[in-house]
Amino acid sequence: MPKVAIFIGSISDEETIKPCTDVLRSLGISFRFTVSSAHRTPERTERLVEELEGSGTQVFICAAGMAAHLAGAVAARTTKPVIGIPVTASALGGMDALLATVQMPPGFPVATVALDKAGARNAAWLAAQMLALADPDLAKRIADARAGFREDAAKAGADLEARYPG
Amino acid sequence: MPKVAIFIGSISDEETIKPCTDVLRSLGISFRFTVSSAHRTPERTERLVEELEGSGTQVFICAAGMAAHLAGAVAARTTKPVIGIPVTASALGGMDALLATVQMPPGFPVATVALDKAGARNAAWLAAQMLALADPDLAKRIADARAGFREDAAKAGADLEARYPG
Amino acid sequence: MPKVAIFIGSISDEETIKPCTDVLRSLGISFRFTVSSAHRTPERTERLVEELEGSGTQVFICAAGMAAHLAGAVAARTTKPVIGIPVTASALGGMDALLATVQMPPGFPVATVALDKAGARNAAWLAAQMLALADPDLAKRIADARAGFREDAAKAGADLEARYPG
Amino acid sequence: MPKVAIFIGSISDEETIKPCTDVLRSLGISFRFTVSSAHRTPERTERLVEELEGSGTQVFICAAGMAAHLAGAVAARTTKPVIGIPVTASALGGMDALLATVQMPPGFPVATVALDKAGARNAAWLAAQMLALADPDLAKRIADARAGFREDAAKAGADLEARYPG
Amino acid sequence: MPKVAIFIGSISDEETIKPCTDVLRSLGISFRFTVSSAHRTPERTERLVEELEGSGTQVFICAAGMAAHLAGAVAARTTKPVIGIPVTASALGGMDALLATVQMPPGFPVATVALDKAGARNAAWLAAQMLALADPDLAKRIADARAGFREDAAKAGADLEARYPG
Amino acid sequence: MPKVAIFIGSISDEETIKPCTDVLRSLGISFRFTVSSAHRTPERTERLVEELEGSGTQVFICAAGMAAHLAGAVAARTTKPVIGIPVTASALGGMDALLATVQMPPGFPVATVALDKAGARNAAWLAAQMLALADPDLAKRIADARAGFREDAAKAGADLEARYPG
Amino acid sequence: MPKVAIFIGSISDEETIKPCTDVLRSLGISFRFTVSSAHRTPERTERLVEELEGSGTQVFICAAGMAAHLAGAVAARTTKPVIGIPVTASALGGMDALLATVQMPPGFPVATVALDKAGARNAAWLAAQMLALADPDLAKRIADARAGFREDAAKAGADLEARYPG
Amino acid sequence: MPKVAIFIGSISDEETIKPCTDVLRSLGISFRFTVSSAHRTPERTERLVEELEGSGTQVFICAAGMAAHLAGAVAARTTKPVIGIPVTASALGGMDALLATVQMPPGFPVATVALDKAGARNAAWLAAQMLALADPDLAKRIADARAGFREDAAKAGADLEARYPG
Repeated sequence: MPKVAIFIGSISDEETIKPCTDVLRSLGISFRFTVSSAHRTPERTERLVEELEGSGTQVFICAAGMAAHLAGAVAARTTKPVIGIPVTASALGGMDALLATVQMPPGFPVATVALDKAGARNAAWLAAQMLALADPDLAKRIADARAGFREDAAKAGADLEARYPG
Repeated sequence: MPKVAIFIGSISDEETIKPCTDVLRSLGISFRFTVSSAHRTPERTERLVEELEGSGTQVFICAAGMAAHLAGAVAARTTKPVIGIPVTASALGGMDALLATVQMPPGFPVATVALDKAGARNAAWLAAQMLALADPDLAKRIADARAGFREDAAKAGADLEARYPG
Repeated sequence: MPKVAIFIGSISDEETIKPCTDVLRSLGISFRFTVSSAHRTPERTERLVEELEGSGTQVFICAAGMAAHLAGAVAARTTKPVIGIPVTASALGGMDALLATVQMPPGFPVATVALDKAGARNAAWLAAQMLALADPDLAKRIADARAGFREDAAKAGADLEARYPG
Repeated sequence: MPKVAIFIGSISDEETIKPCTDVLRSLGISFRFTVSSAHRTPERTERLVEELEGSGTQVFICAAGMAAHLAGAVAARTTKPVIGIPVTASALGGMDALLATVQMPPGFPVATVALDKAGARNAAWLAAQMLALADPDLAKRIADARAGFREDAAKAGADLEARYPG
Repeated sequence: MPKVAIFIGSISDEETIKPCTDVLRSLGISFRFTVSSAHRTPERTERLVEELEGSGTQVFICAAGMAAHLAGAVAARTTKPVIGIPVTASALGGMDALLATVQMPPGFPVATVALDKAGARNAAWLAAQMLALADPDLAKRIADARAGFREDAAKAGADLEARYPG
Repeated sequence: MPKVAIFIGSISDEETIKPCTDVLRSLGISFRFTVSSAHRTPERTERLVEELEGSGTQVFICAAGMAAHLAGAVAARTTKPVIGIPVTASALGGMDALLATVQMPPGFPVATVALDKAGARNAAWLAAQMLALADPDLAKRIADARAGFREDAAKAGADLEARYPG
Repeated sequence: MPKVAIFIGSISDEETIKPCTDVLRSLGISFRFTVSSAHRTPERTERLVEELEGSGTQVFICAAGMAAHLAGAVAARTTKPVIGIPVTASALGGMDALLATVQMPPGFPVATVALDKAGARNAAWLAAQMLALADPDLAKRIADARAGFREDAAKAGADLEARYPG
Repeated sequence: MPKVAIFIGSISDEETIKPCTDVLRSLGISFRFTVSSAHRTPERTERLVEELEGSGTQVFICAAGMAAHLAGAVAARTTKPVIGIPVTASALGGMDALLATVQMPPGFPVATVALDKAGARNAAWLAAQMLALADPDLAKRIADARAGFREDAAKAGADLEARYPG
């Protein structure tokens, strides 16, 4: 029973979205990572959403490029939170995917995160924050990870200062 | 049995898309003009596409704003030609709707026309051109209308020249 | 003890964000709606986040225009989910606020929704979806509201068809 | 007697547009693939359109980059459907070609598809959908190809799930 | 025998382009101001270019909006200099017309000026500069007009300083 | 002897830039507010920069729209800090003025602030911050003004909360 | 006595602008190709314009990237026609240089051509068209070159057709 | 006691910002170059600003990509001048960082310079110009450097002319 479902619209997005699975694993969150397309396999998308929601999936993460409809198509079929990752897949620098993901009509939000790998990571963090609303242990793991970020940044700062003695 | 189905994603798009119906009427093409949303009523959209295709509809015209998924959602459910009209419905000047309509993945084209009222008219002309492939009478009516455009432009030119005697 | 906190960066955003409070009220979700700025009142923003989180606020909604840092500043101070509404407040059509809200670095997601009033409504719906993960009654109210959307759209479709007898 | 004519504005677009010919071949649709420019060879473009239309060509596909006028120039000379493929050929990421192709004035639609290779494929699919309005066998071949897409996507999903055991 | 021909793609551009005629008149340059469209009246456009060039027209000015092909279509038919004025005629803020006008392929330049009324004026000034290469009297009138600009700006500066005694 | 010089490229920018003078006055900073254009009056611009710098002006503020060269032209003539305010003066939403102001080559920075009235105010605040580096009294006045901002924001927050009792 | 002066704002633009010199040479037009910057060497720019204009230069071509002021700075100092080539020199894809070049205020046109190498070639063709207004031999060489374009395109079309026997 | 503090939001920006330190060194200006993030280490950022301002730092330079909040976060905590360098760190070509840096609300200016390395250099030049308001020796070093630029440009011009003998 995965807590989080990750859909990519095309297998070509695998490498871009892999960091999402890394973050979820590091936080001990179960997931299912699969391919389903709003256009090529609308029935599969619909069926997967129904199955997963029925078996306890709490958050959907959808990544797609170009006219990125996948997150919206999932949002139309579930009332669980849906997170959208816009993927750069054309010469337009991801602007197409970003606007097609974020500009949803009232009642059907897609929680949109940054483009590409940064967004893949943040989709996992956002899903974790949502799940942590009812899971204090997970909340603690998120807080611990943030403390690690702080330490890394402080250390990077000290290293940099040593290399550039002003 | 309408030859053309026109879907708008929201009733607020009615005025923008009305010119599409005017052109179809002027060419004697039957149509059905209704509201259906990719997100609010996905089942209705799916059911209407199936019904209409079954009863002989040849071309689908879909108009939507923002993350304009409607044309793509219809294109995923039919192999009839689907025409998309991007509608300006946010502060982004229609760029969101344009990119969300045109950047479709391989196998699921949306024949995208211009933004807003110009696009509404052109969706009708494009649908007519498609239908005319098998309807010589309609082809003649299209050609006649073009001759009218030419005359109007020539007359507008003569009028303008008279007002600005160089 | 409000479940949701709504921050606007400037009192001039009140009218744009009011629909967010309407949706929350319609769903029976308590909220606190206040002004706090990432730049003018960073200490107030920091203190409010700490106070609200301590008293049980589960979701933060932040609306700002231009170089919209408010949601990011809140996300840096809490591990609760933060939703960002980009507001059009310059001649750039909201593109500035959208990019400044959504393009957050790894570890600090902002769940970005659409621009302006559409986004204000969707921020409320998204917050409700998050809270509903642990509140089955709220989940039912969201589902009921969606059923209402479907009915409204179907009725609008029937009305439109009656006015344009194809 | 080719059913479809494909014009590229410059020989440098050959590789980008080749996928269009692959799709047409896979569907058994005859075509003529040539170079003609709206600016360098306007008379050739005009003559080719007239010749091809006279000999039974049903759909024109035009690909061009930058100030992409080719599809519009053809649309001005025929009432057959014209499909435009915008090609990325400058530092502007194809935005120039996209807008120059899609924003046609009323009466002269260009059925615009996605940028570059995705658009090349979709131009062929769209042309096929138009021809299939009067060709049930072709309609069946399109439907069969779609079934193949569905199977490919489902298989890719299963493979991905096996590699990421959540 | 007009020295300059001004073509607008649509009579709706008349008010925007009128300042072009004002500048030409102020400099004593003869012109012909007419409507001709790259798409609606390609033969008229072609015929007018040939006629005008034959009767001594030296410079062509073309104004159009959206997928603004008019200047390019004229440039394909003459080796006289062609000046393009992009006109804002859609929700995209004139970006469509600007890119469709300026991004011409090698060998067929369009001398593009600013959007809308500023561009209308500058098209006239640019045409005048070209004609002045072989007309010293006209060159003097241009120089005199510039002196007037300088005086106006200096006077505006003095007036402003008087109103804001710093 | 004004500490700050404010140049506008056109008298039509007066109303947009007036808030700059209001802020300078509120902080007791002397200024000269005049019109000078990079293109219409390059010699005036050059002469004014030399005169003002010679008489003790410390900071130049330049506001212009469209191809906004004024700040850059001033920056080429002085080594004093130059602040640029991009002004929206075309259908492009100020993007033209923003890019033409900020993207200066190495060695000739223009300290660019926000578009239009927000930028007019910030140009004054930035100039004040620069002058305050050597003027502790001015630094105190800036700090006092910030305290006022904080109080205003806190009060606006309290008022808003009273009107929306959650 | 060069007929055409070509200024590049930075030596790093040499390779991009070289095609401009190739076209001028092929047409037998004398030129001077040098470096001068609107910001680094404003006096040199001003002096060169004056010298060149005095010695018979008829057309100025200016190429620059980023906040591309060079063409505008030259246009402010001469009433000869000035052609601007926007150069891509930042991550913004040349949009900065394009807008900074084309959006000139009334009275100071810059005849803007396409970005980068395509624009370099077209600047030469445009300059040649201007010079040909008073030089019938040059006009003939331009027309001959166009005939060559036509033949090349027709040959490329025949070759392509042979490789894709439809 | 560094006169200038340079903050980068991420160690990955080191190479892009290094030219800033080169310019400061060449002008004999002391600096501290460190890593601090608006989101990962808000307390560190706040503490560093307070410490540095207390120990005599006069100017802050902040470089960040994507939703670049760093400069704004520093500007909210100090009344010293803050310079922002937008860094290209996503597929959007730096537009995200540029808008998130420059569009600051009234009272909290960020003196924004060009994107990436050109901006890194200009941040140093701008900081130097600010410091030179109270340091005539530094003002002289800046003026001397400019003279060097002029000589380099003139020499590059002469070299180029020699290679292209018109």
